[in-house]
Amino acid sequence: MLIFITVLMVNVWAIPADDIFSPNINILEELEKMGARMKYMEKEMERLRTENTGNITERVKVAFSASLSASTDVKYIGPYAEATNLVYEHAFSNIGNAYDINTGIFTAPVKGVYFFNFVVFNPYTISTGVRLLKNGNFVVAASDNPPGQDTEDTACNSVTLLLEQGDRILLQLLQNCRIYTDMWKRNTFSGHLLFTM
Amino acid sequence: MLIFITVLMVNVWAIPADDIFSPNINILEELEKMGARMKYMEKEMERLRTENTGNITERVKVAFSASLSASTDVKYIGPYAEATNLVYEHAFSNIGNAYDINTGIFTAPVKGVYFFNFVVFNPYTISTGVRLLKNGNFVVAASDNPPGQDTEDTACNSVTLLLEQGDRILLQLLQNCRIYTDMWKRNTFSGHLLFTM
Amino acid sequence: MLIFITVLMVNVWAIPADDIFSPNINILEELEKMGARMKYMEKEMERLRTENTGNITERVKVAFSASLSASTDVKYIGPYAEATNLVYEHAFSNIGNAYDINTGIFTAPVKGVYFFNFVVFNPYTISTGVRLLKNGNFVVAASDNPPGQDTEDTACNSVTLLLEQGDRILLQLLQNCRIYTDMWKRNTFSGHLLFTM
Repeated sequence: MLIFITVLMVNVWAIPADDIFSPNINILEELEKMGARMKYMEKEMERLRTENTGNITERVKVAFSASLSASTDVKYIGPYAEATNLVYEHAFSNIGNAYDINTGIFTAPVKGVYFFNFVVFNPYTISTGVRLLKNGNFVVAASDNPPGQDTEDTACNSVTLLLEQGDRILLQLLQNCRIYTDMWKRNTFSGHLLFTM
Repeated sequence: MLIFITVLMVNVWAIPADDIFSPNINILEELEKMGARMKYMEKEMERLRTENTGNITERVKVAFSASLSASTDVKYIGPYAEATNLVYEHAFSNIGNAYDINTGIFTAPVKGVYFFNFVVFNPYTISTGVRLLKNGNFVVAASDNPPGQDTEDTACNSVTLLLEQGDRILLQLLQNCRIYTDMWKRNTFSGHLLFTM
Repeated sequence: MLIFITVLMVNVWAIPADDIFSPNINILEELEKMGARMKYMEKEMERLRTENTGNITERVKVAFSASLSASTDVKYIGPYAEATNLVYEHAFSNIGNAYDINTGIFTAPVKGVYFFNFVVFNPYTISTGVRLLKNGNFVVAASDNPPGQDTEDTACNSVTLLLEQGDRILLQLLQNCRIYTDMWKRNTFSGHLLFTM
């Protein structure tokens, strides 16, 4: 009798055991599948994180703005027989250090689209003119002849350019022109990256 | 005796078996929960990936800059009895092709905030004036009467506008005004998207 | 005999049971490891999502543009014995509400690099001048003496500045100067965030 009971117990017990066994095999498969999905997700997450670091959190920031003279004294530059590089030596800002206050040259740190703006102030008796060059080639200018009875004039120009990394932007005083500057900082040169390409 | 041992074995064995069985049920539940979390994460990751594609890596890039004449020859436009569309035909850049060099019209490719700047050059004896229109409506102007003894003047203006997709921005020469252009490219029209909305 | 069979059955059955049991323990470990990886991924995903919300989808959008007068009537401001705040009361746009049309003051909502541009129009017999102040300190100016026979002149200036959150940018009419405005909106003040820092 006891033997029968034992056998019975074993068999009764064997039923749920079997139910468990077949799920157990699925669990292993399930775990493997989940492991693969996780591995993929971890890779993707790493990619997203890297892209974010590259493009967002640490995205390229380039902007400068400078006036012609670091001094507040009255100062004339020119006239010269040849067009002459202008060095805007007082930087209001120079994020990314792409503008060199010693040479007046802006060098594109990355391929991208950049906006430039420059303002030329012209008091009495002076003929003035400034041109923007890209890698030595003319792009745009701003100029003003002597205002005569009118003793102050302002010229300006803007341009947006697609630059390759290393392209150089520079302002030059036109030949036989003179530019005036003083404490009022009315001669400025500004530029910034709009977006990378 | 053997029977007793057998029964004992079964029971002894049954204890750890029970311990395992109840975790077994938890494992299934655990796997189901994990599967749900994974599904959610995969969805979220897809969303992040899509947003990144939409907003970062492939974010909308719109910028143009043009001067009035593609030629280096001296050229006068106007005067006309009616305000007349100006076509800045020489594009320095036109990322996104939102500016049409054939019509002079900028059409916003996406809802967003755009910055526009235009510069008007005015030599001797000319009265000039340019206005910026949004969908045909006046926004801002720049103008200059004849400089007289002073033989060069520059006028300009800037404006930042929230545009709906399809909004049109255009510069017009004011009625009875004349605009002059030459190789120095002192008449320019530039604009770019600051951010989408 | 039956007893022997029973014992045999139990033992035979015990072998696969043991095989299962040891994997069962690995499954638990595996599940724990997976749970940890998931928790990490969920955290990371939350971080990516938040950064996206902060920097991309919901990145700080700041841009304003205003003309001096909300009216289309001719209006003169000044001259005053002291430099006087100018309130550009007609906003073309004011995304982020950082510019106050009641005071003329722009307050940086976040630390970042901002571009500012202002245009000053000057008709006959007026000496005009505007300066841009950062927290009360002089940055740049634009000015124009009476155009004389020439009856219209435009002055302007631009500057890009790194501002701390709360820094205030303001335009002032210079002492003893007068500024003119009318329906043509030729006196404007615009600014926008280039990027946060």
